[in-house]
Amino acid sequence: TALRLGMIPADGIGKEVLPAAQRVLEALGSAIPKTTFIPLKAGWEEFNKNGKALPDETVKILKEECDAAMFGSVSSPSHKVEGYSSPIVALRKHLDLYANVRPVSSVPIPGQYSPAQCDMVIVRENTECLYIKKEEIKTREDGSKIALATRQITSTASTRIGKMAFEIALRRGKEREQAKKDGKKVWWNDIPKVTIVHKSNVLSVTDGLFRESVRAVKDGNERYDGIKMEEQLVDSMVYRMFREPEIFDVAVAPNLYGDIISDGAAALVGSLGLVPSINAGDNFIMGEPVHGSAPDIEGQNIANPIASIRSAALLLSSLGYVEPASRINAAVDAVLAEGQYLTPDLGGKATTSDVTDAILKRL
Amino acid sequence: TALRLGMIPADGIGKEVLPAAQRVLEALGSAIPKTTFIPLKAGWEEFNKNGKALPDETVKILKEECDAAMFGSVSSPSHKVEGYSSPIVALRKHLDLYANVRPVSSVPIPGQYSPAQCDMVIVRENTECLYIKKEEIKTREDGSKIALATRQITSTASTRIGKMAFEIALRRGKEREQAKKDGKKVWWNDIPKVTIVHKSNVLSVTDGLFRESVRAVKDGNERYDGIKMEEQLVDSMVYRMFREPEIFDVAVAPNLYGDIISDGAAALVGSLGLVPSINAGDNFIMGEPVHGSAPDIEGQNIANPIASIRSAALLLSSLGYVEPASRINAAVDAVLAEGQYLTPDLGGKATTSDVTDAILKRL
Ligand SMILES: CC(C)[C@H](C(=O)O)[C@@H](O)C(=O)O
Ligand SMILES: CC(C)[C@H](C(=O)O)[C@@H](O)C(=O)O
Repeated sequence: TALRLGMIPADGIGKEVLPAAQRVLEALGSAIPKTTFIPLKAGWEEFNKNGKALPDETVKILKEECDAAMFGSVSSPSHKVEGYSSPIVALRKHLDLYANVRPVSSVPIPGQYSPAQCDMVIVRENTECLYIKKEEIKTREDGSKIALATRQITSTASTRIGKMAFEIALRRGKEREQAKKDGKKVWWNDIPKVTIVHKSNVLSVTDGLFRESVRAVKDGNERYDGIKMEEQLVDSMVYRMFREPEIFDVAVAPNLYGDIISDGAAALVGSLGLVPSINAGDNFIMGEPVHGSAPDIEGQNIANPIASIRSAALLLSSLGYVEPASRINAAVDAVLAEGQYLTPDLGGKATTSDVTDAILKRL
Repeated sequence: TALRLGMIPADGIGKEVLPAAQRVLEALGSAIPKTTFIPLKAGWEEFNKNGKALPDETVKILKEECDAAMFGSVSSPSHKVEGYSSPIVALRKHLDLYANVRPVSSVPIPGQYSPAQCDMVIVRENTECLYIKKEEIKTREDGSKIALATRQITSTASTRIGKMAFEIALRRGKEREQAKKDGKKVWWNDIPKVTIVHKSNVLSVTDGLFRESVRAVKDGNERYDGIKMEEQLVDSMVYRMFREPEIFDVAVAPNLYGDIISDGAAALVGSLGLVPSINAGDNFIMGEPVHGSAPDIEGQNIANPIASIRSAALLLSSLGYVEPASRINAAVDAVLAEGQYLTPDLGGKATTSDVTDAILKRL
């Protein structure tokens, strides 16, 4: 078999880190199926050039010709621009990538950074909440303006993201059991745990439905008997993550809360430049570093490629290529543990290419 | 003149920390006007007893007989309970307390805790956003459910919260100038700064309006010429606050983002038990610790009273009693700096009463 990967660098440092991920995938050679990389357009720069942030052509090729994809990062205008809409939000919708899975774990870097002890996965609902972007604005009689947005939560979307979270918790539990058997030190000794993040003390209807739907996933299924279920209000979650990150295993959250807490978790482990994600649906997966387009460092070859490289690994393992994925992760961890090749976000002076080269050497 | 203060302990540890704040206010004696404390009911326990989370009587007395108030903390059911609605959210609305002002600054505690270097004020819009609680739920033909909530942003509310933020930045700037003249070390050397927190890359209409309205406050007013204005997307804000808290001075945010980032800031300085707030309108002010009702430690006399005591100080200074407010804050800082009387949230073994006594001694 062969693999056809859509590559969408989009804006800013996306154009630097996505090629780095591609180099790593190419270096795997015959360890993965023969891979074709198909460059695709999207983004704010694309919008300014050709008037469309997400060209129809890109969606068509992704749907018809690709097995999976990698996305870089987008720049967004901070004001309303007629005709512009975030291409990453649109892609998640078009391809029904209903889960954004973001594993965040701490890597101590000798002499540089001693992060909080954190090894968790954030499972973010990726299709609804305020991201449905139903907004309107009116001018009142007195000349003032009122704008309204709709936040949507459905039992269907909440249930499927809940299932994803429990499946991930189950898998993590098994992996830890195996690791213990192999005599490895594991971080988490307790039974697997899913923490439901919501704000149902204010949003009793919408977040109430999210909470209930996720709870029902476990309550209705013996398969998840060995998994603990807890809850945190989103404000409290941010607080707790910083006070005692070690208590979390898998967190599941509606779209916006998931967005916010994953940036929080990234801060815990030292840099957004380290945190990978996949946007996952039942039929398609798209890797995406959690960081943004970072226009301030664009074009300087100093962006951290690790988030993208790890996203490629996450993509591979989700496609079933677990062994090559582990090889990538081991190479990344080795480079971090050595502490010789670090980009500026981690306090180092290495370039994007230096870090990528170092990873390639250790592959 | 005399001062009539409504006291609403509400639920959980609110019933322990509010009396502590009252003791401190009482101890000020003639340094403040003769103060009458009027106990008032509200909360989840009150709802379970008498069927109303916010009795009409409480609102009536606050409006007609009180000059200001102190609120403890509320417990909330995590599921929808017919007839129940958060009394703190309702009070903010009834009394038009449109700003929630939350100063967060780090206090190193010798041998215990070395917090991030943080000295900022979060100015949270307090009346709209998703807190208008317009929610509905429907069952679809296939039996699944869809719930919708409305998020409201108006130019009027955004403008007035923006003004509040710029006024606070102006005052902080002056205070720092004065402190420098007095030969004191000041934390912040740069000109005052207001950071607007939003998510207009997704919510271009609602958060676009918030952003625009706040920006217009400065752009239309020479008074604020000496203040810097910056922006952060809310996810990035959480990240940045943890990576470089020292870069923030005043942050202004719509209701929900303000809720979330203030818990994040509280984690930075060591404990939610340290962070005070006032809910402020043009005609009324209500002090409120940022922490919740903490049912797990309720009734054990170990809740940290400092957030409440500082809220009382904040209330006093907002009412114009700046000198007695400073005395309270100095006493609190002294107790923290000594590190002898710390409640468990700060790693100590002291009780609520111990800490309060210690503060009273240093008043
Ligand atoms: C760019 C933006 C629309 C996006 C989001 O909010 O989902 C980003 O913050 C992310 O986390 O992928
Ligand atoms: C109790 C809850 C409704 C409240 C809020 O979200 O405003 C609390 O978290 C706060 O920050 O005061």
